[in-house]
Amino acid sequence: MEFQKDKPQEHCAIFGIFGHPEAAKMAYYGLHAQQHRGQEASGIVTTHSDHKTGKYHFRIHKDFGLVNDVFKDDTILTQVLIGSAAIGHNRYSTAGASDNKLNIQPLIVNYRDGNIGISHNGNLTNFRKLRKRLQDEGTIFQTTSDTEIILHLIAKSREQDQIHQIIDALNQVEGAFSIAILTNNKLIAARDPYGWRPLAVGKLENAYVIASETCAFDIIGAKYLCDVEPGEILVFDEETVNNSEAKSFRLQNKQSRPYHCIFEYIYFSRPDSRVFGESVDRVRRKLGKALAEEHPVVPDSTNNTVVVINVPDSSNTATLGYVSQNTKQGNKSKYEIGLIRSHYVGRTFIQPQQDLREMKVRTKFNTVRGVLEGKKIVIIDDSIVRGTTSKQLVKLIRDAGAREIHFRITSPMIKYPCYFGMDFPSQNELIANWCEGDIEKIKSELGVDSIGYLSLDKLLASVPRDRGQYYCTACFSGQLPIEIDDLSSKDEHEL
Amino acid sequence: MEFQKDKPQEHCAIFGIFGHPEAAKMAYYGLHAQQHRGQEASGIVTTHSDHKTGKYHFRIHKDFGLVNDVFKDDTILTQVLIGSAAIGHNRYSTAGASDNKLNIQPLIVNYRDGNIGISHNGNLTNFRKLRKRLQDEGTIFQTTSDTEIILHLIAKSREQDQIHQIIDALNQVEGAFSIAILTNNKLIAARDPYGWRPLAVGKLENAYVIASETCAFDIIGAKYLCDVEPGEILVFDEETVNNSEAKSFRLQNKQSRPYHCIFEYIYFSRPDSRVFGESVDRVRRKLGKALAEEHPVVPDSTNNTVVVINVPDSSNTATLGYVSQNTKQGNKSKYEIGLIRSHYVGRTFIQPQQDLREMKVRTKFNTVRGVLEGKKIVIIDDSIVRGTTSKQLVKLIRDAGAREIHFRITSPMIKYPCYFGMDFPSQNELIANWCEGDIEKIKSELGVDSIGYLSLDKLLASVPRDRGQYYCTACFSGQLPIEIDDLSSKDEHEL
Amino acid sequence: MEFQKDKPQEHCAIFGIFGHPEAAKMAYYGLHAQQHRGQEASGIVTTHSDHKTGKYHFRIHKDFGLVNDVFKDDTILTQVLIGSAAIGHNRYSTAGASDNKLNIQPLIVNYRDGNIGISHNGNLTNFRKLRKRLQDEGTIFQTTSDTEIILHLIAKSREQDQIHQIIDALNQVEGAFSIAILTNNKLIAARDPYGWRPLAVGKLENAYVIASETCAFDIIGAKYLCDVEPGEILVFDEETVNNSEAKSFRLQNKQSRPYHCIFEYIYFSRPDSRVFGESVDRVRRKLGKALAEEHPVVPDSTNNTVVVINVPDSSNTATLGYVSQNTKQGNKSKYEIGLIRSHYVGRTFIQPQQDLREMKVRTKFNTVRGVLEGKKIVIIDDSIVRGTTSKQLVKLIRDAGAREIHFRITSPMIKYPCYFGMDFPSQNELIANWCEGDIEKIKSELGVDSIGYLSLDKLLASVPRDRGQYYCTACFSGQLPIEIDDLSSKDEHEL
Amino acid sequence: MEFQKDKPQEHCAIFGIFGHPEAAKMAYYGLHAQQHRGQEASGIVTTHSDHKTGKYHFRIHKDFGLVNDVFKDDTILTQVLIGSAAIGHNRYSTAGASDNKLNIQPLIVNYRDGNIGISHNGNLTNFRKLRKRLQDEGTIFQTTSDTEIILHLIAKSREQDQIHQIIDALNQVEGAFSIAILTNNKLIAARDPYGWRPLAVGKLENAYVIASETCAFDIIGAKYLCDVEPGEILVFDEETVNNSEAKSFRLQNKQSRPYHCIFEYIYFSRPDSRVFGESVDRVRRKLGKALAEEHPVVPDSTNNTVVVINVPDSSNTATLGYVSQNTKQGNKSKYEIGLIRSHYVGRTFIQPQQDLREMKVRTKFNTVRGVLEGKKIVIIDDSIVRGTTSKQLVKLIRDAGAREIHFRITSPMIKYPCYFGMDFPSQNELIANWCEGDIEKIKSELGVDSIGYLSLDKLLASVPRDRGQYYCTACFSGQLPIEIDDLSSKDEHEL
Repeated sequence: MEFQKDKPQEHCAIFGIFGHPEAAKMAYYGLHAQQHRGQEASGIVTTHSDHKTGKYHFRIHKDFGLVNDVFKDDTILTQVLIGSAAIGHNRYSTAGASDNKLNIQPLIVNYRDGNIGISHNGNLTNFRKLRKRLQDEGTIFQTTSDTEIILHLIAKSREQDQIHQIIDALNQVEGAFSIAILTNNKLIAARDPYGWRPLAVGKLENAYVIASETCAFDIIGAKYLCDVEPGEILVFDEETVNNSEAKSFRLQNKQSRPYHCIFEYIYFSRPDSRVFGESVDRVRRKLGKALAEEHPVVPDSTNNTVVVINVPDSSNTATLGYVSQNTKQGNKSKYEIGLIRSHYVGRTFIQPQQDLREMKVRTKFNTVRGVLEGKKIVIIDDSIVRGTTSKQLVKLIRDAGAREIHFRITSPMIKYPCYFGMDFPSQNELIANWCEGDIEKIKSELGVDSIGYLSLDKLLASVPRDRGQYYCTACFSGQLPIEIDDLSSKDEHEL
Repeated sequence: MEFQKDKPQEHCAIFGIFGHPEAAKMAYYGLHAQQHRGQEASGIVTTHSDHKTGKYHFRIHKDFGLVNDVFKDDTILTQVLIGSAAIGHNRYSTAGASDNKLNIQPLIVNYRDGNIGISHNGNLTNFRKLRKRLQDEGTIFQTTSDTEIILHLIAKSREQDQIHQIIDALNQVEGAFSIAILTNNKLIAARDPYGWRPLAVGKLENAYVIASETCAFDIIGAKYLCDVEPGEILVFDEETVNNSEAKSFRLQNKQSRPYHCIFEYIYFSRPDSRVFGESVDRVRRKLGKALAEEHPVVPDSTNNTVVVINVPDSSNTATLGYVSQNTKQGNKSKYEIGLIRSHYVGRTFIQPQQDLREMKVRTKFNTVRGVLEGKKIVIIDDSIVRGTTSKQLVKLIRDAGAREIHFRITSPMIKYPCYFGMDFPSQNELIANWCEGDIEKIKSELGVDSIGYLSLDKLLASVPRDRGQYYCTACFSGQLPIEIDDLSSKDEHEL
Repeated sequence: MEFQKDKPQEHCAIFGIFGHPEAAKMAYYGLHAQQHRGQEASGIVTTHSDHKTGKYHFRIHKDFGLVNDVFKDDTILTQVLIGSAAIGHNRYSTAGASDNKLNIQPLIVNYRDGNIGISHNGNLTNFRKLRKRLQDEGTIFQTTSDTEIILHLIAKSREQDQIHQIIDALNQVEGAFSIAILTNNKLIAARDPYGWRPLAVGKLENAYVIASETCAFDIIGAKYLCDVEPGEILVFDEETVNNSEAKSFRLQNKQSRPYHCIFEYIYFSRPDSRVFGESVDRVRRKLGKALAEEHPVVPDSTNNTVVVINVPDSSNTATLGYVSQNTKQGNKSKYEIGLIRSHYVGRTFIQPQQDLREMKVRTKFNTVRGVLEGKKIVIIDDSIVRGTTSKQLVKLIRDAGAREIHFRITSPMIKYPCYFGMDFPSQNELIANWCEGDIEKIKSELGVDSIGYLSLDKLLASVPRDRGQYYCTACFSGQLPIEIDDLSSKDEHEL
Repeated sequence: MEFQKDKPQEHCAIFGIFGHPEAAKMAYYGLHAQQHRGQEASGIVTTHSDHKTGKYHFRIHKDFGLVNDVFKDDTILTQVLIGSAAIGHNRYSTAGASDNKLNIQPLIVNYRDGNIGISHNGNLTNFRKLRKRLQDEGTIFQTTSDTEIILHLIAKSREQDQIHQIIDALNQVEGAFSIAILTNNKLIAARDPYGWRPLAVGKLENAYVIASETCAFDIIGAKYLCDVEPGEILVFDEETVNNSEAKSFRLQNKQSRPYHCIFEYIYFSRPDSRVFGESVDRVRRKLGKALAEEHPVVPDSTNNTVVVINVPDSSNTATLGYVSQNTKQGNKSKYEIGLIRSHYVGRTFIQPQQDLREMKVRTKFNTVRGVLEGKKIVIIDDSIVRGTTSKQLVKLIRDAGAREIHFRITSPMIKYPCYFGMDFPSQNELIANWCEGDIEKIKSELGVDSIGYLSLDKLLASVPRDRGQYYCTACFSGQLPIEIDDLSSKDEHEL
């Protein structure tokens, strides 16, 4: 739920609103609630029509920084970003050099049918082919982001109306995309046919709202209506608002079933959000229970109760699930708060020197000795990527006097990179990869008494399947659901 | 544990270190760990001696902002703030106009025996008398802070050596003070005879460390040694470091027993700290249990289990205590995470408009509907000051579908101001005060189904008493343990 | 020579360098020397090739502000902007909304033949037609600047090599352009066939340098070689450096003679620069002499000498010319410093209130009473645009006791807008326009005893004509040398 | 007139106003006009009385930077710094470490008779004795500035009323001081009995204004009334405003004649100011003439006219004087603008590398080749301190083709430090000092064909003497007019 450099990085939050007099302010709050999905940069675009000329103008403000920093001066929201429709974006870069200001979204351009702005969450997998084709046709690229491709395809479409230009463009791109598009007088929501990334629709009085996660609706008091379906395009305009019915279109059906990113449930989404139609909190509790079924920890003569602690705040709910299930299985278990997390760790923290190797984890976490000393400790975490933070956490807990430490993870071993928008480190930095999946080696590396990963089967059994959902689990299994352009996903594009 | 404008404000964290090559860096981490005790301003002073001249120089850096912001440029720590001894301070102003840069601590001055710097946590109660006396003697005041008084008294002392000048000065001031003093070549720790505010001593290799809370030791890997005793003055210098034994002096014994601020246990201190010789976490758990004894919540036919939720993160541990005790008493209870707290709420958040009254609490908290819907909810909080945030939290929980809401508080009603360093709002803004302690009125004001405050007796029974400790409970009872200068504590001083 | 809001605004300085190990630093100094041509924003792009991969990368830094502010952190020049070729730009916007960050130059894009960057001084007059044509072909526009057009035309050219793509593109645009283009491994200089804006070539050791004004060569110690000829394209690459001979190409010859902007001599260029092949200082002295021939001021019985003062620093040299010629004509004249200019007037000066109407001119100029009191004063200025500053200056001089004030201007009346890059206020704000050229009305408006503008004939007789040069004087005469796209030049483009 | 690191630094401008509804805004403009006297830091203090309580409050804003930067946010002037009386200060530090924020003036303190603020221009010469005495009495020092001494002496005075406390204090200090003091309801102007630094009184409607230089009056439209006499104290309060008559007091008459700093005429003051009762411009012209009398330059067969150029803008007027006198003596001379100064050289300019040694002077000055080439050049400057800039200027002029270069200086050789407020480099860095006054050595060092310094006699003959004025010329002669505390003037004070 929170930004951890050693966790897989989700790259974006998107937000859109149509028909609200304070559209930019709503976008601001909606992005703020989704800050955990991208802390690198933030931006909002509005469209408004000039009463005298009838012309539409776009207003934009975007910069590097947290939402609060980028919009520190609130006159930007009330005086600059005027208009009743807006889209916004929080970004943690995957495609595109992250230090290039031009890559900050939303992107806005002008073409023959007016202005157009776009916010994109995901990763296009046929990016290179399309860019090559467009360049051969004489197209210039001003960003290194794959999102710019979509804008060129829209402008080059032979379709007459904007909606069909957009459909035409999106039918040409492959990979993961949840998108908010703003035109002079429309808001368009679109989701790839696999439904990789979430995208929900809500309503706030007469206005329509779209967001990656439903927590963005809660903050502004909007009600959740439905998800944008995989492969669906929804159009919100004045007519929509008047009729209370959005127009829906379909992308070409390239495949028969969705592939949701299962990491949204494991780690990315906020527990108070509903994604892929289910409460994240509820899924996480199930993951904790499933983990206890597979990897229980049994009390011993010294400690007739095992102490189960969470890594705040990402494994909070799963820990409750583990405790209840482990207890149910006859292993007396107690939920405890053994790690205290600082609220003040920001991005500007000074770089600890070599001799202060453990400083980074210490500035974030401290142990509660009284809870840990002499105890058999179970620590629940959602995932292990590099393992470096885990190792230092284990050391902290050991230093606080824990007698035994049993590490339990609510996901399988991460062994493969992601091509659909999750920003893992390079494959050989993944602990499960360089330890070749050898559980003993990982155990010894982390310095724990035992370690247990949730199995892929149990994981899949814990997530909603009742409506024919499938999940992308390529980072665990290496099996890609679709063919992709080029496997060297970490390559930086030109410019 | 976290900065909430609607909670009583602790005003300061202090830190000191003697004998470490990277004294400023240690101070930085020590202040960072104590950020919760003061978010308004931060500063560090070091002393170093010039090898050529043998002269001592003070280096200082301080400004408004969080520790990370004030020391954003880490060359300040490594190149400007050189020297092997340092003191630091985080501040939330009580005495002194908070917008005056001159009031930021540490204060440093030069007098006939060299340079002297001071960091002060507490509030002097005979401030006015002393200031008047000093002014009549021809003294000028450059700050509006009561801390400046101490420096004048030291400089005016007739004692020959610095230590006795300091003792002389501190024997003249009354009220609450935990102090770190830096001279050219010494670090001095002092605590008022009542022991109002905490002050602990630790060791990091050969260096001595002092801090308001022991979490500052943990972050740098220092070991807790002992508390500075009420009325004790400890001197750390080269000799101390060599002999591993600090010199101890005593202030005049104006009274027979300490008066610790009981709010340190209820709310101020971090749960992972040890204050007044006891783990805060342990005390908070007891408070939760005592609260359940006094104010249990009984399941009913609709909900055969009551759902107990915490207000993250200040009531986390107490909630665990409540759940276990309520259950023990036969009331089936379940600990749940019903409120999610945003990690990104900073001080610069835009001011919500009138029509967005509930925005402030929503940018900080969101509910987990699945956990609350249709349930009998017990919400545990540490204290109620104005009641405005509590009221809005209750509304959020009600909106998420809670069937009943039972509010339980791990402290008695706050009805009186504090004269010893806690920054309450004015007395008539305290909900318990303007509701005249009428429990029905408060209940109705907050919109809850029942409300239960921990009694003063139970509170006192839950905190350590075994070593003759007494506690200041003036904010609950109105009974002041000492006579004070002037009861209009909120008056701003001149300048 | 200096930025005055009430003077016609030149929009840009350009700079380019090829073959220097510290290309960015040279660009920085070259832009600094040309700061007077644009104070709104500044930027530098470099190209460097990665030794390992052989790939070329562009590095860019640009922002609003003066050169010194934009490159305040000099590690940007030495560590970020690496590479041995660079182009730079100072901007005062004409085309394109000036508050749009995306419009700051240099612009950089990537297309099928690599990266390309551009710095442009001038104004395209068939902008609208080209933009419409490109949009119809499916092109998107990310800026509102006419410069972006050129990049699209290059990318869409069917020519095989980059140089011919650039020639192809520039043959399609009309109007004023002096351009620096950076490709992966080349620097290209180009100037429109009319030679509207200056562009000079210099040499610094082996490196080639191009700049709008030669003062940019002096600061880095480069030697002036020649001007880029009207309609010429010069290519600098590794071969050029090795052979000490740039490759030269020609644009289609649309016309038989150049039209230099005569305002470069009157006001824009620095006196220490050489533009259109002649020293600006020398021309200005001639302008002063010609002005004395046309509009002498005769001493009278009270003052047997007329006191001639300059408006520092833009009319300094012309004033010397006027004094010597007026004296030669038998009118005893004395050059005096009667106005002192503050060195500290920046762009952030607070806005004077209504009741402080004269504050703005007073913060910039003060009078030397002893020089002015009781005297017959001749004040020399280069041009009058709105007349508001002139009026206030006259009042200041009158208040200092001048007996008579005679205003002399080294240019004709400005009555028409400029379509070729000079940023005049709207036509009806021009004092000569709304006074309908009535000299008595202007005299009375400014409150002077006499006023004399240099005639267009005398102006043309004072500038170099020996090599068949012609000058654009459309702002005086209203006669446009070429047909233009759309006369509503101040319209803001879309987005 | 402008800030040059290689020129002697004047340390301060002071300003005060009493009885104006926009006192802070007037102070802002008054400080802006005096920016040349101090560019390091700026500050303003106002006093206002609360209508309800009748209490007086001080408001202060001060920081490092130019006036425009420190008061960038103009709401500070209109909303924070309210009140009808104000004092202000621009500072270039002499006494006190310049990087200490606490030293920025005005200083404000509170003592038994209320608040008091002070702005000080000058240098106290018995600083050490007084500081020692005060420390022995138990006084603490919060700044390293000698100005703080005065505040302590005021507070410790046994006199009953504030005016006599101030007189008492000022009678104890020695050296140079022009001072503005603000109390709750009074503005006090004071000047040392030697009249070292200027201090003028003006009137703006009913309000009284004081300033170091009269150019501060011109900018706000105030009229110059008189100078504060050496040894005089003037009090402005409500009564003064009502009666239009300030109360005047005298300091003890320690000496019979004033010692004005002659450098105010040579370099420090703006030419449009009146200091020590005379127009600076007029004196500078005399200096130029006297210089021509002593050190004429004769044309030769190659150049029948010598070309005389100024170093803009500090020697502008003197150059005119030199030209007219040299001509009068039969040496045909022509004033020319041979050096162009950049308007954009600020304090943040990047540090040129070693290989760019001449960059610094080039970023500031460029030559006009046409004016210099093949000519016999006379360059007029006001003073030579280190000589490093002069040497580089000479090189620039030589590179532009000058045939001969004759350097003429409107002051004698500077060989000694200043103890009265002028910030020279250390004595052995002064070129006249390390060349031991050997004119041939200096000539060869600078690379000129001849050099001529104005003699001390001629200098004294050029400044006003008619009212018994004397001048301090210690930096030329080494003869100190008064005994001073300690000759090691550059020592940094404690803290």
